[in-house]
Amino acid sequence: MHTIKDMLGRSGAIPLAQALEVLKQQLQSIPCVDEEKVLLESSLHRTTSREIRSTEDLPPHPRSTMDGYAVHASDTFGATESLPAYLEISGEVLMGATPKQGPSSETCYKIATGGFMPPGADAVVMLEHTVRVDDKMIEVTRPVSIGSNVIAAGDDVRKGAPLLPAGHLLRPQDLGLLAGIGVEGLFVRKQVRVAVISTGDEIVSHTIQPPPGKIRDMNGINIAALVRETGGRPVSYGIIKDDEKTFSETIQKAMKSCDIVLFSGGSSVGVRDMGEQVLDRLGKPGIIVHGVAVKPGKPVIIAFSGETALFGLPGHPVSAAVSFDLFVRPAIHHYQGRTPSHLPSLPTVTARLARNLNSAAGRTDFVRVQVKKDGARFTAHPVLGKSGALSTMVKADGYIIIEESLQGFHEGEEVTVRLYSTAN
Amino acid sequence: MHTIKDMLGRSGAIPLAQALEVLKQQLQSIPCVDEEKVLLESSLHRTTSREIRSTEDLPPHPRSTMDGYAVHASDTFGATESLPAYLEISGEVLMGATPKQGPSSETCYKIATGGFMPPGADAVVMLEHTVRVDDKMIEVTRPVSIGSNVIAAGDDVRKGAPLLPAGHLLRPQDLGLLAGIGVEGLFVRKQVRVAVISTGDEIVSHTIQPPPGKIRDMNGINIAALVRETGGRPVSYGIIKDDEKTFSETIQKAMKSCDIVLFSGGSSVGVRDMGEQVLDRLGKPGIIVHGVAVKPGKPVIIAFSGETALFGLPGHPVSAAVSFDLFVRPAIHHYQGRTPSHLPSLPTVTARLARNLNSAAGRTDFVRVQVKKDGARFTAHPVLGKSGALSTMVKADGYIIIEESLQGFHEGEEVTVRLYSTAN
Repeated sequence: MHTIKDMLGRSGAIPLAQALEVLKQQLQSIPCVDEEKVLLESSLHRTTSREIRSTEDLPPHPRSTMDGYAVHASDTFGATESLPAYLEISGEVLMGATPKQGPSSETCYKIATGGFMPPGADAVVMLEHTVRVDDKMIEVTRPVSIGSNVIAAGDDVRKGAPLLPAGHLLRPQDLGLLAGIGVEGLFVRKQVRVAVISTGDEIVSHTIQPPPGKIRDMNGINIAALVRETGGRPVSYGIIKDDEKTFSETIQKAMKSCDIVLFSGGSSVGVRDMGEQVLDRLGKPGIIVHGVAVKPGKPVIIAFSGETALFGLPGHPVSAAVSFDLFVRPAIHHYQGRTPSHLPSLPTVTARLARNLNSAAGRTDFVRVQVKKDGARFTAHPVLGKSGALSTMVKADGYIIIEESLQGFHEGEEVTVRLYSTAN
Repeated sequence: MHTIKDMLGRSGAIPLAQALEVLKQQLQSIPCVDEEKVLLESSLHRTTSREIRSTEDLPPHPRSTMDGYAVHASDTFGATESLPAYLEISGEVLMGATPKQGPSSETCYKIATGGFMPPGADAVVMLEHTVRVDDKMIEVTRPVSIGSNVIAAGDDVRKGAPLLPAGHLLRPQDLGLLAGIGVEGLFVRKQVRVAVISTGDEIVSHTIQPPPGKIRDMNGINIAALVRETGGRPVSYGIIKDDEKTFSETIQKAMKSCDIVLFSGGSSVGVRDMGEQVLDRLGKPGIIVHGVAVKPGKPVIIAFSGETALFGLPGHPVSAAVSFDLFVRPAIHHYQGRTPSHLPSLPTVTARLARNLNSAAGRTDFVRVQVKKDGARFTAHPVLGKSGALSTMVKADGYIIIEESLQGFHEGEEVTVRLYSTAN
């Protein structure tokens, strides 16, 4: 058992920006996970590991983008409502067929959206700009220029052109385009394997009735879900006692099969002590961050052993979740080989604060808020509660950040609320 | 084969707001899908079908929220740095144990964060506000009041209190809290089954080399991915010909096992014609929307047959995706039994427009844009291309909306860009 004495003098915590920079620098020397080939249908939200270029033109042949008539554009020059051009309907393009023949001069072919352009025709007159005279004849009431309402071969995608860079997170529309050029399978980064370990003599599985003195594990389930939401694969190593040998063995086992190891504990003292001692012995570079000036989430430990990242998350579920968002999420993205985006990934709203909020200077605060709507206006109501209270995070819709340089916000001030993801 | 003539006079399209209202009204009379019981670990992003109340207090016993010393608060009253209170260390709370004994007056127990409060003690003095005199004695340099640094039994969650309402989308933190009160399994809405049908004589599977005149199916893959992203379960019915009998049979087969049926076609003429005729015969209420004044996405059909929603999406992949976002996504949410949120679900950025954009009045335009960052400023660059071009959606980071009442935006004007989801 470690004593509280061990902890004295360990209140030093570095600023958030510094911790993030240290982590970023360290990650730069760590390779991302290997690639694997997956079926196109299974590639949603995976990251490309290679640039993808098109092996063909899309469309492969010029197509109409409108319902109407394929014409020689020159036959329509000068056409107006009062002086229309008369064109004979000499044929029709059937969907799914490559027309062998096309309209001769002063005739036209009926064509639907998506129909392949018949030989000779160089433009499409929209249905709306024609009047049907009889079965065989139309009036064209507006001129079209060459190429009007036609998508040329290769206009969407040119053969050999880069379509998606490596490091791209695959969205539904990306899959659609890849289907269009005949991609059946593609190389993506493997799912990042993230070990989830709960520690603490007082922690028991959520599936049992806790004996006196014990409480159920909340972090294990919460963190595994956060990993899944970030596109990683959580690997549970269960709940282990605050025992250095067990802890050390579990960490080493986890390191063998996972890219990232997360451990959190019911007791910040025990976990930090053990964490520090065990991580110190795992090899270079060892612990790179130990305590960050954020609230909640201060007692976080970040270490690297070879190519494995290890994170000691606070035991408080709320603190653990904040630490996850700040440090673990970007690490998972790095191992996934994702190119960092310059765009926000979470929805935000601007809201008026419902009460004063104080913060100590030199510390970044994350304050959970409920967001209510009054007419077109949003109001942010801080959800207060003891720091161990997970219920505050459940009541909250998101959080506001009080930057290190600020001492708080006043009631009525406009603040930016970062909303928890609701996954569409 | 249907002729272009069939389409004449069908250019009528209702405003977007009206179409959304008609859909909303119709959905109100449709029940959501059945519930099922799932393991807590498998419930992420599912929707609760019942209110969840706590069956116990959390924490079950008062706990310390700090590392420090459990004391009688009255022993510390008046303590200062120059005149500290002296307390004897008479014991220690071990993690995971329920202390049977506690500090008597003018003594204290060592306690770590999360430790169960020993009998008699009513507050915790933080380590930082003490000075260790020797093995047996501490100085307390600040007074604490009763309850300080202690979370009382039931302070996080009170037995019987409502935790989550029915219709709640389950987030990682919700799972954590439910684990804390011992929930092993819970009732959620079944996954909404969404039939995905591609139609068109010219459409072939993306896994084959298209014969002349044919192109590969893009909508099937794209739409299935959109359904998955929305939490639904896509059920593919493959590619069917523009043939009324086949189409009708496929729709009816899909209706038997799915909650929502989506069909899209390579040719808007063929699909709209067939769609209308087949849907007309499926029973009440039939087609409720046929054409919406949006660009792209105008030729959408929305119909209901009994409790099944049917959507005829435009054949253009870009149009189909816009229609999906506007109409299918809220329908899936309805069938999922989700309580509509008053908060945005997609991230946005405010950006300056890089060029003029014109729009016809009376129509809502969705313009895809690439967002670039210059310093702290975002610039939105419209991604232009023929309307059939899926590559424009792949190049885009999101889109801007030009409301019906507007005729466009000027270069340099500030616009709100809705970013495509990047799923964290």
